[in-house]
Amino acid sequence: MSWLPLQPTSLFSLANIPFGIFSTPNNSTCRPGIAIGDYVLDPQSFANGGGFCASVDIQQHVAVFSAKTLNPFAILGRKFQRTVREYLQSILSIDTKNPEILRDNFVLRKDAIISLFDVQMHRPLDIGDYTDFYAGIHHASNVGKILRGPANALQPNYTHMPIAYHGRASSVVISGTAIRRPWGQIVPNLKAETKVPILGPSEKLDFELELGLFICQENTMGEPISISEAEKYVFGYVLINDWSARDLQSWEYVPLGPFGAKNFGTSISAWVVLADAIETTKGSGIQNSSQLLPYLSENSLNSIPQIELEVEITTAKGHSTTITRTNSKNLLWSWPQIIAHHTITGCNLRPGDLLGSGTISGAEPGPEGSMMEQTQNGKVPIQLDGGEERTVLLDGDTITLRGWAG
Amino acid sequence: MSWLPLQPTSLFSLANIPFGIFSTPNNSTCRPGIAIGDYVLDPQSFANGGGFCASVDIQQHVAVFSAKTLNPFAILGRKFQRTVREYLQSILSIDTKNPEILRDNFVLRKDAIISLFDVQMHRPLDIGDYTDFYAGIHHASNVGKILRGPANALQPNYTHMPIAYHGRASSVVISGTAIRRPWGQIVPNLKAETKVPILGPSEKLDFELELGLFICQENTMGEPISISEAEKYVFGYVLINDWSARDLQSWEYVPLGPFGAKNFGTSISAWVVLADAIETTKGSGIQNSSQLLPYLSENSLNSIPQIELEVEITTAKGHSTTITRTNSKNLLWSWPQIIAHHTITGCNLRPGDLLGSGTISGAEPGPEGSMMEQTQNGKVPIQLDGGEERTVLLDGDTITLRGWAG
Repeated sequence: MSWLPLQPTSLFSLANIPFGIFSTPNNSTCRPGIAIGDYVLDPQSFANGGGFCASVDIQQHVAVFSAKTLNPFAILGRKFQRTVREYLQSILSIDTKNPEILRDNFVLRKDAIISLFDVQMHRPLDIGDYTDFYAGIHHASNVGKILRGPANALQPNYTHMPIAYHGRASSVVISGTAIRRPWGQIVPNLKAETKVPILGPSEKLDFELELGLFICQENTMGEPISISEAEKYVFGYVLINDWSARDLQSWEYVPLGPFGAKNFGTSISAWVVLADAIETTKGSGIQNSSQLLPYLSENSLNSIPQIELEVEITTAKGHSTTITRTNSKNLLWSWPQIIAHHTITGCNLRPGDLLGSGTISGAEPGPEGSMMEQTQNGKVPIQLDGGEERTVLLDGDTITLRGWAG
Repeated sequence: MSWLPLQPTSLFSLANIPFGIFSTPNNSTCRPGIAIGDYVLDPQSFANGGGFCASVDIQQHVAVFSAKTLNPFAILGRKFQRTVREYLQSILSIDTKNPEILRDNFVLRKDAIISLFDVQMHRPLDIGDYTDFYAGIHHASNVGKILRGPANALQPNYTHMPIAYHGRASSVVISGTAIRRPWGQIVPNLKAETKVPILGPSEKLDFELELGLFICQENTMGEPISISEAEKYVFGYVLINDWSARDLQSWEYVPLGPFGAKNFGTSISAWVVLADAIETTKGSGIQNSSQLLPYLSENSLNSIPQIELEVEITTAKGHSTTITRTNSKNLLWSWPQIIAHHTITGCNLRPGDLLGSGTISGAEPGPEGSMMEQTQNGKVPIQLDGGEERTVLLDGDTITLRGWAG
């Protein structure tokens, strides 16, 4: 419980304490902020008003709260982020031991606490590289069935390693940024002997529901991160909408994988949930049918975040329908496994790197993490409130992803 | 001709004027430099000594010569880069109209001209995203024949669009940086019904000879760059060695393309040859068998750089053998076509982005741009001077790429 008036249903509870980058109409400088209920705590103003006076550890690093991205905060490492999160939880708690710092300090409250509705959010970190994995086994299986039939749904490598491709970092934008329907080459009849592409706007635009992870530490190039060390490299989590142009993808993706079908825009949530906030939500995932190589073997079976996930579509007419309800426990691979595999070659991760989980769908047919799956590749329209239906996204549609745990 | 004593065979001639980032034992600050013969001109010291006094345009932007990367110089655009290159050519020319600025100014010569053998080179630009294309048609065809047989060597999409995948920016390093042999999953028998991977160091490490291009301008996300505007976005060129672990790649790459097989390291030359220096070398490339969509159609047929290329291997025993001689005219796609295709979806390019051409091999069997091709996938060893032979790279081998034109 906080002394701030928080809605019980708020995703920005005292247990969360997510970080983002914001500006305000009065101060256009991009700077770190912490979401709490319907408020944003400005740690720079908070620091200037003596807010961190009860922590020597934090005091000596308050410069990171004046940076334009969260990278400097991330680089300080997971232990420091834990210290800050726990400190702020104690300050904001109804039974805080230091009420004079903020609760009873109305001058500092006025300076450091801003309405969430008055802030403009910005990209939280400078993203060096973005890698998109394919760890949602039901999604991989569903898509494989559509493309290759049930007998060959999953490729032989799928249960042996977290499959991934390098994504596009420049076009990662925060939630709320408009995405233009991409143009590209489309082949009207892919089964024809002679395939003749036309140029046009994608007619098969889709969403993909994913979890994202930001990296906070760098490993030396040439030196893999062991699975037991991987958690130290985790800064925090976001939701990802990996917008996909299915018609562009089906023509371009052999043999080097998706390119234009994905590079036109990837949306992430503006608030980064710190690694520690997810730790207590972890549980067991899906039993892997293959014997794993030692570099991918974990001591704990409880390494998969159990985050409730939801996708809502709002049409141009204003009707909103929840079309996906699933959970991140449907990932075959944990984040430590993903990090260990990413770096086994010696590939270096850097603070600000973004990793995507891959699309998350449940085991049962129904509300999967993409329209391609939900509609069986366009055969069965999704019925929406207000009498509309969809097999693909139309101009003016808004997709909202939500996630919560605990 | 320059008044500086240049070897006639130097790749850093007066016609070149490439830019890089260097430091010296006496001054460890990374800063821009220009290679000329066996010397490096330090434009910061040159500016401090009044070197740019004859150009108002350059004078007002000399701060970019104090930056730690070439990104600020790149962002000023191709016209500015042309002004600087032509200015330096005039100052370094034997019949310079301003001999007092440098030729006869022995104080400034001492300050601003450093021996090439005394400098340490660094990564020239901060690379936002690295995209690797596949525009070397003979390479694509050779690899396709090895993997799928001659009837299906090229995929149907190949002649319709420049095929590409997103690469890894964090592990792009400059020439001379040691590359550790990557570890990863290898399947000893890929034809077996049940494929069981082992973990180990790659036993099929290969080089790939490519051209690279650095971007100098940003396009707004959602707004493609037209083919007629594309040249304005070109900062300059480097050589790329796209190190590849063939055994990792063959197991991992279906369905999302190469990942660990490429992410452990990509080498680029430390000196960036400005776009203008390549302009006069352009000529016609390979006739495309497909009718191109208008967004990929060029007015000029002479859009392909004609750069002589060479690969030399030096073994741990010290024997050096030139194993590849080819030319960049073997690219099916020009850089403007590559830029137009990259952005047709609305994908935004940013200054410092690196694009790779794809491996360049000639039309005839012989000295192709990778060992996989040269050895017909390991069947025919390459004979080296000193009685050694190779089907793959061995520990201690050094690969040197060279390129020249005009």
